[in-house]
Amino acid sequence: MATIRLGITMAKMKAVVKTKPEPGAELVEIDIPTPKPDEVLVKVLATSICGTDLHIYEWNKWAQNRIRNIPQVMGHELCGEVIELGTNVKAVQKGDVISAETHIACNHCYLCHTGNAHICINGRIFGVDVNGVFAEYAVLPSSNAWILDKKIPRDFASVMEPLGNAVHTVLAGEINGNTTLVTGCGPIGVMSIAVARICGATRIIATDINEYRLQMAKKAGADLVLNPKKDDIVQRVLQETSGLGIDVVLEMSGVSTAIQQGFDCLRPGGRFSILGIPDKPMEIDIGKSIVFKYATVQGINGRLMFSTWHKTSRFLSSGRLNLDSIITHRFRLEEFEKGMELMKSGNCGKVLLYPHPKD
Amino acid sequence: MATIRLGITMAKMKAVVKTKPEPGAELVEIDIPTPKPDEVLVKVLATSICGTDLHIYEWNKWAQNRIRNIPQVMGHELCGEVIELGTNVKAVQKGDVISAETHIACNHCYLCHTGNAHICINGRIFGVDVNGVFAEYAVLPSSNAWILDKKIPRDFASVMEPLGNAVHTVLAGEINGNTTLVTGCGPIGVMSIAVARICGATRIIATDINEYRLQMAKKAGADLVLNPKKDDIVQRVLQETSGLGIDVVLEMSGVSTAIQQGFDCLRPGGRFSILGIPDKPMEIDIGKSIVFKYATVQGINGRLMFSTWHKTSRFLSSGRLNLDSIITHRFRLEEFEKGMELMKSGNCGKVLLYPHPKD
Amino acid sequence: MATIRLGITMAKMKAVVKTKPEPGAELVEIDIPTPKPDEVLVKVLATSICGTDLHIYEWNKWAQNRIRNIPQVMGHELCGEVIELGTNVKAVQKGDVISAETHIACNHCYLCHTGNAHICINGRIFGVDVNGVFAEYAVLPSSNAWILDKKIPRDFASVMEPLGNAVHTVLAGEINGNTTLVTGCGPIGVMSIAVARICGATRIIATDINEYRLQMAKKAGADLVLNPKKDDIVQRVLQETSGLGIDVVLEMSGVSTAIQQGFDCLRPGGRFSILGIPDKPMEIDIGKSIVFKYATVQGINGRLMFSTWHKTSRFLSSGRLNLDSIITHRFRLEEFEKGMELMKSGNCGKVLLYPHPKD
Amino acid sequence: MATIRLGITMAKMKAVVKTKPEPGAELVEIDIPTPKPDEVLVKVLATSICGTDLHIYEWNKWAQNRIRNIPQVMGHELCGEVIELGTNVKAVQKGDVISAETHIACNHCYLCHTGNAHICINGRIFGVDVNGVFAEYAVLPSSNAWILDKKIPRDFASVMEPLGNAVHTVLAGEINGNTTLVTGCGPIGVMSIAVARICGATRIIATDINEYRLQMAKKAGADLVLNPKKDDIVQRVLQETSGLGIDVVLEMSGVSTAIQQGFDCLRPGGRFSILGIPDKPMEIDIGKSIVFKYATVQGINGRLMFSTWHKTSRFLSSGRLNLDSIITHRFRLEEFEKGMELMKSGNCGKVLLYPHPKD
Repeated sequence: MATIRLGITMAKMKAVVKTKPEPGAELVEIDIPTPKPDEVLVKVLATSICGTDLHIYEWNKWAQNRIRNIPQVMGHELCGEVIELGTNVKAVQKGDVISAETHIACNHCYLCHTGNAHICINGRIFGVDVNGVFAEYAVLPSSNAWILDKKIPRDFASVMEPLGNAVHTVLAGEINGNTTLVTGCGPIGVMSIAVARICGATRIIATDINEYRLQMAKKAGADLVLNPKKDDIVQRVLQETSGLGIDVVLEMSGVSTAIQQGFDCLRPGGRFSILGIPDKPMEIDIGKSIVFKYATVQGINGRLMFSTWHKTSRFLSSGRLNLDSIITHRFRLEEFEKGMELMKSGNCGKVLLYPHPKD
Repeated sequence: MATIRLGITMAKMKAVVKTKPEPGAELVEIDIPTPKPDEVLVKVLATSICGTDLHIYEWNKWAQNRIRNIPQVMGHELCGEVIELGTNVKAVQKGDVISAETHIACNHCYLCHTGNAHICINGRIFGVDVNGVFAEYAVLPSSNAWILDKKIPRDFASVMEPLGNAVHTVLAGEINGNTTLVTGCGPIGVMSIAVARICGATRIIATDINEYRLQMAKKAGADLVLNPKKDDIVQRVLQETSGLGIDVVLEMSGVSTAIQQGFDCLRPGGRFSILGIPDKPMEIDIGKSIVFKYATVQGINGRLMFSTWHKTSRFLSSGRLNLDSIITHRFRLEEFEKGMELMKSGNCGKVLLYPHPKD
Repeated sequence: MATIRLGITMAKMKAVVKTKPEPGAELVEIDIPTPKPDEVLVKVLATSICGTDLHIYEWNKWAQNRIRNIPQVMGHELCGEVIELGTNVKAVQKGDVISAETHIACNHCYLCHTGNAHICINGRIFGVDVNGVFAEYAVLPSSNAWILDKKIPRDFASVMEPLGNAVHTVLAGEINGNTTLVTGCGPIGVMSIAVARICGATRIIATDINEYRLQMAKKAGADLVLNPKKDDIVQRVLQETSGLGIDVVLEMSGVSTAIQQGFDCLRPGGRFSILGIPDKPMEIDIGKSIVFKYATVQGINGRLMFSTWHKTSRFLSSGRLNLDSIITHRFRLEEFEKGMELMKSGNCGKVLLYPHPKD
Repeated sequence: MATIRLGITMAKMKAVVKTKPEPGAELVEIDIPTPKPDEVLVKVLATSICGTDLHIYEWNKWAQNRIRNIPQVMGHELCGEVIELGTNVKAVQKGDVISAETHIACNHCYLCHTGNAHICINGRIFGVDVNGVFAEYAVLPSSNAWILDKKIPRDFASVMEPLGNAVHTVLAGEINGNTTLVTGCGPIGVMSIAVARICGATRIIATDINEYRLQMAKKAGADLVLNPKKDDIVQRVLQETSGLGIDVVLEMSGVSTAIQQGFDCLRPGGRFSILGIPDKPMEIDIGKSIVFKYATVQGINGRLMFSTWHKTSRFLSSGRLNLDSIITHRFRLEEFEKGMELMKSGNCGKVLLYPHPKD
């Protein structure tokens, strides 16, 4: 049946599936999905592992509370080729090579109506609320498909979604001519450094406790990297900014000590944009850290649909932004457990999985 | 000497002075000050009591840490008449009736240079760092004098500085067409309601535990007032906003439960502007209240020098804004202790003191 | 056939149709349209005449160049009730009373993707590019339907689309605390005055050569009305603004002399927002009027989809904005020629037509 | 007298002076000026020629109408060393090496009060309204002195004022991720290209009729240069932008055909920032070029005091921005006529003059 649909013998596909409400995941064979009228079927050329995938894999508290559908295919970042169209699809063609926005919006709530579809009240996320893309094939709404400029390599395309998080965070306020502190040099932290660099940040300082990641930060364009285990972050940042404090803090760690350091480093009137997610409440001296500091604190998630995608695409297709040093490891889909272990160690940038390694 | 200077017999003046590092203040006779080259001498026509003055009067922890010069004349809000000019003064004339910006800026630091003189790194404040205006006469830098439009009554002029706080907070982001929650209905909270109202906020909800203040809030333009002792704030606000949450929270209380309620009431992507100052650190779930909520949290203090003053002045001189219901009590300067007691009780709006009650 | 579809005998409907490429229009009987999968069928409760309709009726040059489909039902502003749903429609229900956005967007071009769907590259407009709403029934894409808050009266709903133009123009920059000049007091000009008033503009001056319209402007909230036939506009505006010039000009006339007066009245650094459309090129001294003046000139058309609709709706449903004095005439649909003549005379505000006057 | 003041024999200095209301200028000996209380005396280390200087030199119509004080020292761009302080000066020290803002603001008008001191109503300009800096020494208000970061070379410092124009124009709206057209590759046009490049513009197209300048544009970072004498600008720009049009036009030529091309190249919703000054009025189709295009047109002059200076300084001191290819010629002050001729030819970038060539 599926065979007939696609004209070749391929009723089944391999997929990394969360099969049980416990740590781990399994590579299993399942039916290739059929696109609904507004969806497309995509052959997954490359997919990448996000911290969220690791949380689901490890089955941490957040995952236990958030994941409702088991079994469910994991993963959300991808580069793929459109191979079948739902009956209503107009703006996407067979053969289009795409990346994808992973937030599925309702398009009619107040937030969708006012430029905030990425935080749609009725929003669902690939690999979290619906089946994901750690598989040979996947379906997704055609309005989530991002048709790629041909100048963008497949591997870069696979990580455009988290890169969009970085772009969104860096550009949530003024960055050109601004001194910038990035706390946390995981993949999105390092991408933020690269984006801040090409957008005119004039002094970029990065912090992490992992030396591997600090090396990535340097390659991506950080002017100075600091390790809180060795360096007095606040003192060093004040020194580097003539005692004024830093213009912009981009919080990418979710670690409470880093957040506090960020506030202590921020100059009066500065911007503090937070993408990292602390796993529990923390104490904040609102008077000192926010009110008297005249600080602007922004919670960031997702990417603007689709302003951020256009910018991200242009940064890549123009060659201004290069991700070679940030994509550090590549595996076959079957080796997903190696990828997960690597992510857990922290000694990596982006880790890619290839469901069709020969293509 | 002073007599000769001003051409009349008045070498001494009455002033409310913080004479000792302990609760209270005294009405004493001191020399009328002499303006330095860039200063003007002002006859104080009306002055008003701020919460800050109450803190200094009560000698709370903040005051104990902050106040360094004792004895010092208290007070910073005023309406006055310029009666003598320093030798360099050009932009102000004798006879000008003025209000005054109370933050003295250095005009050459990074913050002064970039539109943030109100948070000048070298900034000093009347009645906190230098002698204030609870007195018959006062000196102030001519660049702090705000020459009044003749249509603005003296009493309104006396409270233009805290009104400027309200204007600054309300207009720190979009307000027209926005639903708005004001937590805390002290004088600046109530002024914020009035300002939000004339600037197009479409549903204004106000909270306080004091019924006197809730009545003021209603008169100032609140569409709905809620008392956290009786009402389930979060539930009611969600109900009033079709479950979406409120667009803008203006935090005017400094109370941690009100702040938490504010976060819980805020819609995704909303604005949370904080003028109230909590007296100690509090726990915040940054993930839930800020990051996933895509919230923008702004610490506010002071007023833009002088964009806010121009707006405030126009709101008053055009008659769009009326403060009659917000100025609730008037005393002679000698009666300052009555004013302080009233402020302590919370059963008042702005309290004015007149050093020259017959003028 | 249509009878069966709607369950009652009504295969045909009356409509005002542009039947020939020449001045005029005809009331004719045509088939009630059938909604496509993404469309809804609406019973038109009220519809209003726009200047664009008059241009098409009079068949001026613009219309001759722009209108390609004849015969075509005229009209685009409406309040209606949804009576039938296309097969894909989800977010709208039968029985919903709606107004409608009249720009049909493609939702996938660069402009749709980046918050500018109202100027979609592939955009089409009711009554201009496709059949309109001067009829007993009309079809429209469900995503164009604006479900009404029950507090908004039908007549106000009918004019929400042009009111949205006014809201969009007024709020294209800062308005609170700003002095404002509205050049041209046609219906949208007068609506702009009303909107500017409730959003905190502190001095509103309006100009027109028609005294009827200047009276409407006054009722809507103008502080001062001027007639260029009698008054020296530039001199008066400078006088009213202490010689500084006006903060904001809202150009609603399309008349070159008014545009030049607007530039001459504008203060250095002011905003000049243009909704009026001159019918031919005009001379501008860019150096004097724009560069040395540090002016920001904004071309405005349409309304933000759907931020502007949300604001417009809230202004009306909160009762902050009242249009009673702006809706001046009401006719049955059959009397459309009377409405057109009235529009031509200029002695009217909004003119409404009722296809089902007994409902 | 002056000798005693500065402790060395130098009562007189050489200066390039506009001595008569006719074309030309003269190198003459005049008294070294004495700083007033708020001024500083500066030894001019380098000064550069602006297009405005050329206009005054050539005595064109603008100059004839604008220049009121003759004789007057020409010139306004400089790098200098502070050698004497007025009696009130606090924020500047002897020995400070400075560049200078050339607009002298009153600091108390509405525009100075609201962040627009650069267009101060009472503003005066070095070399236009008061004596300038084409001289061995010059006085200027201490608040106009910009104390240099030691990492910035003197030659770059000398051109920081026009570089500030470029920074101000480029950053008057969003630039990162934006396609950009620079019309006119004189020195400020070329600087704009360099600034746009480091701030994330993703495709920069530059036009000029002078091939020398197009080569400079390429070196500064333009991705594509076009010559209107050979290329169909509008067609090429549309081609380069997939038919959409360009996001941002930076108009640096003041030429009416270039301005019209700019409008024709601009995408719907785009930004059109004008620094170039046409010498006479021109015809504009406001409907087509601005209103239906939903364009934002900005007149730019000067630089923000001092946000732009901070950014400009950081771009230079961080090494992000290099001006080596833009400073093309260097002369002794005495050779100013050679510099003027070169400027007239257009075959140059910035031309510097050294009053003390041995230092």
